[in-house]
Amino acid sequence: MGEVAEGIKAMGLAAMDTSGALSRFDFYRRNNGDDDVTLKVLYCGICHSDLHSIKNEWSGTIYPIVPGHEVAGIVTEVGRNAQRFKIGDKVGVGCMVRSCRSCVSCKQDCEMDCRNLIYTYNSEDVDGTITRGGYSDIVVVNEHFVLKMPDNIPLEKAAPLLCAGITVYSPMVSFGLNKEGMHLGVVGLGGLGHVAVKFAKALGLKVTVISTSPSKETEAITLLGADSFLVSKNAEKMKEAMWTMDGIIDTVSGDHPIPPLLALLKPHGKMVLVGLPEKPLTVEAFSLVIGGKTLAGSNIGGLELTQDMLDLAGKHNITPEIELIGMDYVNKAMERLTKGDVKYRFVIDIANTANKI
Amino acid sequence: MGEVAEGIKAMGLAAMDTSGALSRFDFYRRNNGDDDVTLKVLYCGICHSDLHSIKNEWSGTIYPIVPGHEVAGIVTEVGRNAQRFKIGDKVGVGCMVRSCRSCVSCKQDCEMDCRNLIYTYNSEDVDGTITRGGYSDIVVVNEHFVLKMPDNIPLEKAAPLLCAGITVYSPMVSFGLNKEGMHLGVVGLGGLGHVAVKFAKALGLKVTVISTSPSKETEAITLLGADSFLVSKNAEKMKEAMWTMDGIIDTVSGDHPIPPLLALLKPHGKMVLVGLPEKPLTVEAFSLVIGGKTLAGSNIGGLELTQDMLDLAGKHNITPEIELIGMDYVNKAMERLTKGDVKYRFVIDIANTANKI
Repeated sequence: MGEVAEGIKAMGLAAMDTSGALSRFDFYRRNNGDDDVTLKVLYCGICHSDLHSIKNEWSGTIYPIVPGHEVAGIVTEVGRNAQRFKIGDKVGVGCMVRSCRSCVSCKQDCEMDCRNLIYTYNSEDVDGTITRGGYSDIVVVNEHFVLKMPDNIPLEKAAPLLCAGITVYSPMVSFGLNKEGMHLGVVGLGGLGHVAVKFAKALGLKVTVISTSPSKETEAITLLGADSFLVSKNAEKMKEAMWTMDGIIDTVSGDHPIPPLLALLKPHGKMVLVGLPEKPLTVEAFSLVIGGKTLAGSNIGGLELTQDMLDLAGKHNITPEIELIGMDYVNKAMERLTKGDVKYRFVIDIANTANKI
Repeated sequence: MGEVAEGIKAMGLAAMDTSGALSRFDFYRRNNGDDDVTLKVLYCGICHSDLHSIKNEWSGTIYPIVPGHEVAGIVTEVGRNAQRFKIGDKVGVGCMVRSCRSCVSCKQDCEMDCRNLIYTYNSEDVDGTITRGGYSDIVVVNEHFVLKMPDNIPLEKAAPLLCAGITVYSPMVSFGLNKEGMHLGVVGLGGLGHVAVKFAKALGLKVTVISTSPSKETEAITLLGADSFLVSKNAEKMKEAMWTMDGIIDTVSGDHPIPPLLALLKPHGKMVLVGLPEKPLTVEAFSLVIGGKTLAGSNIGGLELTQDMLDLAGKHNITPEIELIGMDYVNKAMERLTKGDVKYRFVIDIANTANKI
């Protein structure tokens, strides 16, 4: 698993060990191939999985690691087979940069399920090099994995749609939780949860935010547009809300009890996990069998659906709430993210602050 | 919660306490009302839940309890509003005898999800009496909950379709696991599992039986028509079978590990529990999120779907494998059922053996 020893000079932030501390890192990207698009990175969102990855909390981290899979920028070069794009286009790159393109999953717009999937960072690419993400000034990506960003949304606000957006939108579509008038619960109000509320409201759903933090109620309703707010530790209110929801999108990565959430579902309701709690979940069979309920998982989403999601965000002006930071602030941002101290997504202003590291 | 003190004289088998020992019990059924159908019970299947119920293993048992919800017989009286049926019809009664008929669930042919559902036995009926099941010579049931039995299947063989049949057929339909050519895993080869294999084959599916018992392989394939057999304790074979199944119907009520089964599913595959293991299931979020997999439950099925299932069984001559026993053998049968010593469903020959108890 070697380095690219020549090509396009790039710089970025890399963690060198499990401390996760990020520092300036200079490296090469491959030259733009016939099927590639090169983009000047302007912004990159900070996803919670970046934090897990730089500290090797999910194991498998290869150091140095350059994270970042909410990459937004401007096209600077296109290969001769990459004619969907032209220089100057506002584009994005999400969690994936390569797949086989020929398996059943790839053919069904489910590249995330391809067994030869290559993630945007920390994956071994076909040339044996390790992919590096968007905490860097330039990326070179196969055109299939490049997305057109909505014209009417500032690029820095659109960046988090590339992971957080598709991660919450995909289960709404694939589990049929996108029908006007449905009642959707959104568990957790972080980077993913707050975008879930915005998409669900744009789709005409009734949305209840379910959270451990009563302090988030006002913002959930006034800023994000949720219809109601349920404190998961309030047993009485949880009981009142039993059997009322068509679906639940659970965005929480911390350990939390699942059965009280299943109890909120109507018969044949569907709860979809998009977070990854570390400890195994425990679920009584009764809580699924009685009422014919579903507990499922969902992992990002295919490229075609991601483009649909971006187009929908443009149409409805769905803009994640962000805190724009410099590259020199990323270590501090990671500390704050660990404590949940962000409303609601950090986005790194790459182009304007690269000179500060 | 009183007794019916007058009406139609009935006799049957009841357990009087948590020993679960069944003995002769004489009682009254209500007189046939305008909406009712009375049937002379000819046969009644023994479901594993009967065993749980007579011993109060799920709690909530009201003694004396007359179990039985796979009730097949001949119509002997019809109310003036029950004109779907006529005297002499071959009919059946499954797990349910009353629901509100006006809620969303009832209107969507999901009576099993009605919050006012009354089960065939051990439920408090609208008149305050406790319902009594089919281990008895006569039943009186609201006509909506009476099913027409297929003409071409001996009634004793058709009886288990009323619970086992609909329990495994319903999830195939409601989770879209009924499409020709799909690969379905069936976990457990008891009363439910063997019927699942027969329905799945009739629908044109490829069926793999998954069992802890290598000894069941020959019968699974030669008698029941399964395409292949997988011993769940054989780690190597389980690994080979990973990512190959569109769906799994898990019929096992004993405690067993779920993640190795989820691993058999293709991306977006669906595993549906129809058994009720006592201990909570443990499932890693990863095993659902990666591949976007579903773990769901399913509880019997609605009346309309039950009739469809019976009609389909008639069309394809789907006949459960049964051991026909007398009423005097039921206690012994319960002992054998506890040990899994039955191929594959006990059915009580009520009419011919009532005089033996």
